[in-house]
Amino acid sequence: MKPVKVGVCGLGTVGSGTVNVLHRNAEEIARRTGRPIIVEQIGARRDNANCDTTGINVTRDIFDVVNNPEIDIVVELIGGYDIARELVMKAIENGKHVVTANKALIAVHGNEIFEAARAKGVVVAFEAAVAGGIPVIKGIREGLAANNISWLAGIINGTGNYIMTQMRDYGRDFDDVLKEAQALGYAEADPTFDVEGIDAAHKLTILASVAFGIPLQFDKAYTEGITKITPLDIVQADELGYIIKHLGIARRTQSGVELRVHPTLIPKSRLIANVHGVLNAVMVHGDAVGPTMYYGPGAGAEPTASSVVADIVDISRNISADYSDRVPPLAFAQDALDNNAEILSMDEVNTAYYLRIQAVDRPGVLARVATILSEKGISIEAIIQKEAKESELVPIILMTHQAKEKQMNEAIREIESLSDICGDVIRIRVESLDN
Amino acid sequence: MKPVKVGVCGLGTVGSGTVNVLHRNAEEIARRTGRPIIVEQIGARRDNANCDTTGINVTRDIFDVVNNPEIDIVVELIGGYDIARELVMKAIENGKHVVTANKALIAVHGNEIFEAARAKGVVVAFEAAVAGGIPVIKGIREGLAANNISWLAGIINGTGNYIMTQMRDYGRDFDDVLKEAQALGYAEADPTFDVEGIDAAHKLTILASVAFGIPLQFDKAYTEGITKITPLDIVQADELGYIIKHLGIARRTQSGVELRVHPTLIPKSRLIANVHGVLNAVMVHGDAVGPTMYYGPGAGAEPTASSVVADIVDISRNISADYSDRVPPLAFAQDALDNNAEILSMDEVNTAYYLRIQAVDRPGVLARVATILSEKGISIEAIIQKEAKESELVPIILMTHQAKEKQMNEAIREIESLSDICGDVIRIRVESLDN
Repeated sequence: MKPVKVGVCGLGTVGSGTVNVLHRNAEEIARRTGRPIIVEQIGARRDNANCDTTGINVTRDIFDVVNNPEIDIVVELIGGYDIARELVMKAIENGKHVVTANKALIAVHGNEIFEAARAKGVVVAFEAAVAGGIPVIKGIREGLAANNISWLAGIINGTGNYIMTQMRDYGRDFDDVLKEAQALGYAEADPTFDVEGIDAAHKLTILASVAFGIPLQFDKAYTEGITKITPLDIVQADELGYIIKHLGIARRTQSGVELRVHPTLIPKSRLIANVHGVLNAVMVHGDAVGPTMYYGPGAGAEPTASSVVADIVDISRNISADYSDRVPPLAFAQDALDNNAEILSMDEVNTAYYLRIQAVDRPGVLARVATILSEKGISIEAIIQKEAKESELVPIILMTHQAKEKQMNEAIREIESLSDICGDVIRIRVESLDN
Repeated sequence: MKPVKVGVCGLGTVGSGTVNVLHRNAEEIARRTGRPIIVEQIGARRDNANCDTTGINVTRDIFDVVNNPEIDIVVELIGGYDIARELVMKAIENGKHVVTANKALIAVHGNEIFEAARAKGVVVAFEAAVAGGIPVIKGIREGLAANNISWLAGIINGTGNYIMTQMRDYGRDFDDVLKEAQALGYAEADPTFDVEGIDAAHKLTILASVAFGIPLQFDKAYTEGITKITPLDIVQADELGYIIKHLGIARRTQSGVELRVHPTLIPKSRLIANVHGVLNAVMVHGDAVGPTMYYGPGAGAEPTASSVVADIVDISRNISADYSDRVPPLAFAQDALDNNAEILSMDEVNTAYYLRIQAVDRPGVLARVATILSEKGISIEAIIQKEAKESELVPIILMTHQAKEKQMNEAIREIESLSDICGDVIRIRVESLDN
């Protein structure tokens, strides 16, 4: 059959990985696709020593690629919002299918991009945008198509999970581990996107839309980073049978959709609690299937390329098919997306809590704290009051049952205003991930 | 759009689960598929109290279903080889797409069935045949299409994993746990298929074909059950840092394809070592992506129905597409299957070993055993000689590096012939699952 011709825009880590995988596995891929897939052109500002481009038409202007009439599929791997958006919209306008690994682009501009793609009858595929090499978009969109998906929870930022793992395994401080991660190249010079949860929120936004059939609404995601997690809280959690992970959580409730990224205590016995280092995993819970999990490398040149090329193969396998015969980008038919589903503000979310309080060692402190929680309708599951060392404050650890975040915020403000309490209340959310 | 009409053959556990999921989630599924999916007819010898069939045409003759001109997709959930084969072949002959959860049918008659389906231009889908609700066929066939897949290893029999988990957690004997599992309905009255690894070998055969692009060759799979595993070996493995799981392993090597089901020691630190009870998990290693894992319920009415219905949705989403625009059943284009790939006999497989030997407490026993292994080119990684209790035999535990099974078989025969050695050598294979 006629070869499918691919144009790759961007020759950084993922771009070079994509070209290398397409070349190295060309025969295996053609056996699957039923036709060869050829890298027809590469658009990149500079060459990449990790990628042999001999015999490929390389241009310094990425727009040459989207305007090249020979090209069937444009692969956008330049990253960022603005030029990437322009490039993808132009590719669509020119009737080309698009594959992208750009989570920020899809999370922020996806609705507009998918509408344009539908109008032109082309595919925009983005498996590589979430959890690197793990085929979790496909898993949810097609593998779990029978289910009413109730929730999903994922470790979807490798840098953050690496830092949390190092902190736990070696009792190290956040800043200390971050510096080392930066020196080793695991974390960016500006680590904000990773450690503040923005990258995870981009991915979570995409996962939630595919799972629930709702438009992408990144601006409504709640995002809290890992910069305030201390070795002390990691140890306390461990003693209680929990591990702290930076999770993206999306849940469908009667009142709306929860969309939140924050550090979370999860029981050590959960399989996902054993996902360490730079690896990613996403749990997805459907009403028919129950709990499922998808695990693997969440970043890196070839793992991400694995998903980019899987999307290329998907498009190539039925390159001549009608648009109506293709899987819709967000899993649900585009005119069946639920535009009325409300994303809940964090105030409206129900979850359990771990609280750590520094109290002066005076009688009645615990009673005053317990009274405040009780008045807000928050019930306590466990209290651990540590022995005070001489002239030190007493740490009090509280585990609560589920409560509404708004009530908890009010309770925390009142607790912090008690004269017996010093400093801020440390609050980490707790999820059992069991049903 | 025009509804897709489904005929369900078999109304046992999975059949009733399928009808129930299609009804309960009809709206959610139609939002995904872009058209309604209707259960047009059910063929079953008897009703099922768990399934409300009000308003559905129910027939006692399953062949009515495949001959019903209204039906687009026949769902084969009767199980077994012979009538199921006849039913599926007739459905294909009548130009109907087929969805089946029947691992035995696909593993044994799949090649013939897929050829017939190609000739008629219809799809035969079988996600539910492997690992219940886990979308692992789709993950390998599509999600990892970029990869040269090097190996896969799975806990793919829930009954066996339940028994192994109970034996480990409570130090119980195999027979004891099996009896309880039968009483609880987790194991069949005749448990042979599960505990002897035949069910796992059916599933492994399918996974290997989809991963490597080779015809189904169930008759060449090596199958060893869990009936000889003792609590003592489970404890010894634990002390060495391992857990024993009943794994299906498929690996591509220079000399051929390994296809084997047997109890296996795996390091406790592997994520898959933490998959317990009736749950299933499949690790898949590709050259680009590295290690990935897919986890979830491997059996049960609705988990299995989840995969059956996912296949129905897949077919329905592009019901009018050309056969050439569809994903081939074994992931690789049917004329690109590697008919020359040799399945290695177990003698030719390389793996590491755990050996447990009962020796008379006399000087020189260990030296004689070590000499035999050395003469066969097998190197020892660790030896643990336990203290002999009064008038008892000394247990010797050996961990070896990788060796060829043929050499190990010869070594074991020689060791068993030593006068210092009592009874059979216990041999359990060891896999690191790390690259």
